[in-house]
Amino acid sequence: MNRKLTFTWTLAFVAAGFLTQEAAFAQEVPKPAKMTPEMTEFWEPEPRVVTPGVNNAAPSDAIVLFNGKDLSEWKAKSDGGEAKWTLKNGAFTVGKGDITTKKEFGDFQLHIEWSAPDEVKGSSQGRGNSGIFLQDRYEVQILDSYQNRTYANGQAASVYKQHPPLVNAMRKPTEWNVYDIIYTAPRFKEDGSLFSPARVTVLHNGVVVQNNVEIKGPTEYIGLPQYKAHGKAPISLQDHGDLISYRNIWIREL
Amino acid sequence: MNRKLTFTWTLAFVAAGFLTQEAAFAQEVPKPAKMTPEMTEFWEPEPRVVTPGVNNAAPSDAIVLFNGKDLSEWKAKSDGGEAKWTLKNGAFTVGKGDITTKKEFGDFQLHIEWSAPDEVKGSSQGRGNSGIFLQDRYEVQILDSYQNRTYANGQAASVYKQHPPLVNAMRKPTEWNVYDIIYTAPRFKEDGSLFSPARVTVLHNGVVVQNNVEIKGPTEYIGLPQYKAHGKAPISLQDHGDLISYRNIWIREL
Amino acid sequence: MNRKLTFTWTLAFVAAGFLTQEAAFAQEVPKPAKMTPEMTEFWEPEPRVVTPGVNNAAPSDAIVLFNGKDLSEWKAKSDGGEAKWTLKNGAFTVGKGDITTKKEFGDFQLHIEWSAPDEVKGSSQGRGNSGIFLQDRYEVQILDSYQNRTYANGQAASVYKQHPPLVNAMRKPTEWNVYDIIYTAPRFKEDGSLFSPARVTVLHNGVVVQNNVEIKGPTEYIGLPQYKAHGKAPISLQDHGDLISYRNIWIREL
Amino acid sequence: MNRKLTFTWTLAFVAAGFLTQEAAFAQEVPKPAKMTPEMTEFWEPEPRVVTPGVNNAAPSDAIVLFNGKDLSEWKAKSDGGEAKWTLKNGAFTVGKGDITTKKEFGDFQLHIEWSAPDEVKGSSQGRGNSGIFLQDRYEVQILDSYQNRTYANGQAASVYKQHPPLVNAMRKPTEWNVYDIIYTAPRFKEDGSLFSPARVTVLHNGVVVQNNVEIKGPTEYIGLPQYKAHGKAPISLQDHGDLISYRNIWIREL
Repeated sequence: MNRKLTFTWTLAFVAAGFLTQEAAFAQEVPKPAKMTPEMTEFWEPEPRVVTPGVNNAAPSDAIVLFNGKDLSEWKAKSDGGEAKWTLKNGAFTVGKGDITTKKEFGDFQLHIEWSAPDEVKGSSQGRGNSGIFLQDRYEVQILDSYQNRTYANGQAASVYKQHPPLVNAMRKPTEWNVYDIIYTAPRFKEDGSLFSPARVTVLHNGVVVQNNVEIKGPTEYIGLPQYKAHGKAPISLQDHGDLISYRNIWIREL
Repeated sequence: MNRKLTFTWTLAFVAAGFLTQEAAFAQEVPKPAKMTPEMTEFWEPEPRVVTPGVNNAAPSDAIVLFNGKDLSEWKAKSDGGEAKWTLKNGAFTVGKGDITTKKEFGDFQLHIEWSAPDEVKGSSQGRGNSGIFLQDRYEVQILDSYQNRTYANGQAASVYKQHPPLVNAMRKPTEWNVYDIIYTAPRFKEDGSLFSPARVTVLHNGVVVQNNVEIKGPTEYIGLPQYKAHGKAPISLQDHGDLISYRNIWIREL
Repeated sequence: MNRKLTFTWTLAFVAAGFLTQEAAFAQEVPKPAKMTPEMTEFWEPEPRVVTPGVNNAAPSDAIVLFNGKDLSEWKAKSDGGEAKWTLKNGAFTVGKGDITTKKEFGDFQLHIEWSAPDEVKGSSQGRGNSGIFLQDRYEVQILDSYQNRTYANGQAASVYKQHPPLVNAMRKPTEWNVYDIIYTAPRFKEDGSLFSPARVTVLHNGVVVQNNVEIKGPTEYIGLPQYKAHGKAPISLQDHGDLISYRNIWIREL
Repeated sequence: MNRKLTFTWTLAFVAAGFLTQEAAFAQEVPKPAKMTPEMTEFWEPEPRVVTPGVNNAAPSDAIVLFNGKDLSEWKAKSDGGEAKWTLKNGAFTVGKGDITTKKEFGDFQLHIEWSAPDEVKGSSQGRGNSGIFLQDRYEVQILDSYQNRTYANGQAASVYKQHPPLVNAMRKPTEWNVYDIIYTAPRFKEDGSLFSPARVTVLHNGVVVQNNVEIKGPTEYIGLPQYKAHGKAPISLQDHGDLISYRNIWIREL
């Protein structure tokens, strides 16, 4: 490209004194022409306004998946029927069978709060186990990891069997935990092969525990994960037989 | 690699019935041998325990850069002398000259709260302007962007002149704003050229506004950014002449 | 996940001697269970067979864009009419107006050979200038860069005005140059914003000059590039008024 | 940043007619100021000149690892003694024990030619097996994959047990194969953990078979790869008992 050395160029040379006799015998390498501040100021598109929430409440553009009142945004995963987990005190507690959102999502920010059972029993994976399945496939582990050793890539805030959390930021069983999850969905080629893996950032109680890690494929309890092409998909919560409670769940599409 | 088809392999074939007569004439492609759950369970290294803070307080492994009492972690940028910004009510307010941390950092998570001046005056870049310079070079913009249009890549939570925020999650001038910043430092080759650019994720009042974006180089008010090799470096805060206040600043090295 | 500590697990502990009295008081951290070689051997899908070419000839799965005989795979960019560049000795030489392929492409490998005019005249961008526009937008520069200084990000094998080549691997004007280009198309979100930028690797005469660099947007002679969403698109060749010749052009979709 | 709305800015507004009465009531959004071509033209640093080779010969800046005459750039991997593989007709053939380069490398471009034994015997991994270990750890598989089915991630040009080649571009046993390998070394953090994985692009006989794939860790015959921090390291060639021949080996540091 560049049709020819422009007149402007010539002016720039002159202005810079490049054409003096001395310069003719020295290094005459031009520098990029000077810019003005306004050349790197982009007004459009204007970022839309979002009113943030107070104390972890949903921002104005969020889809509220649970506001303490009902499970109307959820259904049973097995048959699509009513989500029958137990509702109490502005939270719900794991009941019979996994549940899944009625809506489907691509890239998103998810806020979710959860609490391990007050009664501590079992150990390792047997204590306070549930899970959040991003796009119904990629599990961010829920586990009572307070003074409860298990495999690192299976403790709370791990990408289950793929990435241990950077640190263990777990609160005590009687306290509420918060996950803030930033999720980028995988992309696939036309032939169904993987173009780019899913990625996830997780803050656990405000502490970074996953920093844009690559998810290796759908969570597998046994064996190695392998991607299969898919589109938008719901958020699912796992019934692992333990009485994990959830509250204040909202999601923003990115 | 792989010295030869092993005995185990043969067993796997037999077990899977691959050697029946029918199969001998059809596709006899082996499948990967089955695994057990324990093969993907990694106990070491154990993520260390961090006690999270309550209500945005510093987690146990954070370096507290400002706890409301003094500016002992900061110095004047110009001459390395005392940081003389104004201390009041558990916050400090911009004073004469930029300030910078005494400590230096590489990759980190930074929590910082700030408030625009209660008295609203000026417009665009002239209203409530300051800035946080990650590693003393890469600016996350501080600006009173509440009902104050400016160029998108110069408003609050922009990577200044590089990336507009995804949305405008600004609170009113009388309220406190929170930035949670996850920063990955750039890496350089031995010859000083760039290996990988800096990256940053920003939550503004709990709303994702930058999602692991690539920083293009040191912030420039005029012209295009260009990387120069550097090592660990401090966090700096800008005196832009406006009375921005700061409080509750902590950082965790990643 | 993980219903409970399995029987297998118990066996593994025992087998490893973890339950001896000594171990009971020491660190009893399990190690991942041992695998067999066949667990990481994946036979499907089988990579399809491609017969490579000899001396830069097209592999069996390539689309031949120019085989020395005719311009039937090309059309005029201006009006879609016949591509009227000059055909001679198994090559074609730049004529009036840009030309573009009739077919469109996404990700691909492109092989293209080109030669600067034998008569050396002009300097900087004025000597032997043309260009290959990947997806009709992203230019890999063609220029006689043999002993011809110009701006680094405008010389042969640059991503024009974005990335200088790592080195100048130019042959003399009377000789043929080869570009082997590996191109990954950009991906866009549903709202038209950029998901992932285009990327390109270039070998110039067998020497790596671009290594999977990120393309910043459509090539601009003036100003900063900005992505706009698009789908598959053709390869275009630029008429810059200089008599660059081309031969042996083939492409493989990736 | 941005001290204040500058005089230039004001001029820009006026020039653009933004301050007319009509505009005062409409959208008065500025556009980035116009640039000139010279603002995006960077002359420095000038890419250094490399004279490319003819017919796959080494470019002028390459380190020649084998030029057909002797094994002086290699040593035995086991004891650092003389590399005793068989030299004949400008090539060398696998002998007793792995060999490794005396020099160590970080990021590089590697050109290497190899030929499977003329006498075809054995099958799957048992036919014409050797391997190139990048940085002594990450294997690009050498195997006679001409009409010889094996597991996809173990055939010629696979990243062994990690990434099958995109296609099988193998030549017949009596012919020479070429690998052009572009390798980016992994980077590690100060604490030894992984910062960024190794990446590799491979052209097999001119056909792209690996496109900047992420290497998962050191090649393992059994089990899952796991990174351990390391610095520069040599190129190694594997003695797998088969009479693979090598010739024309050169490397360029990137």
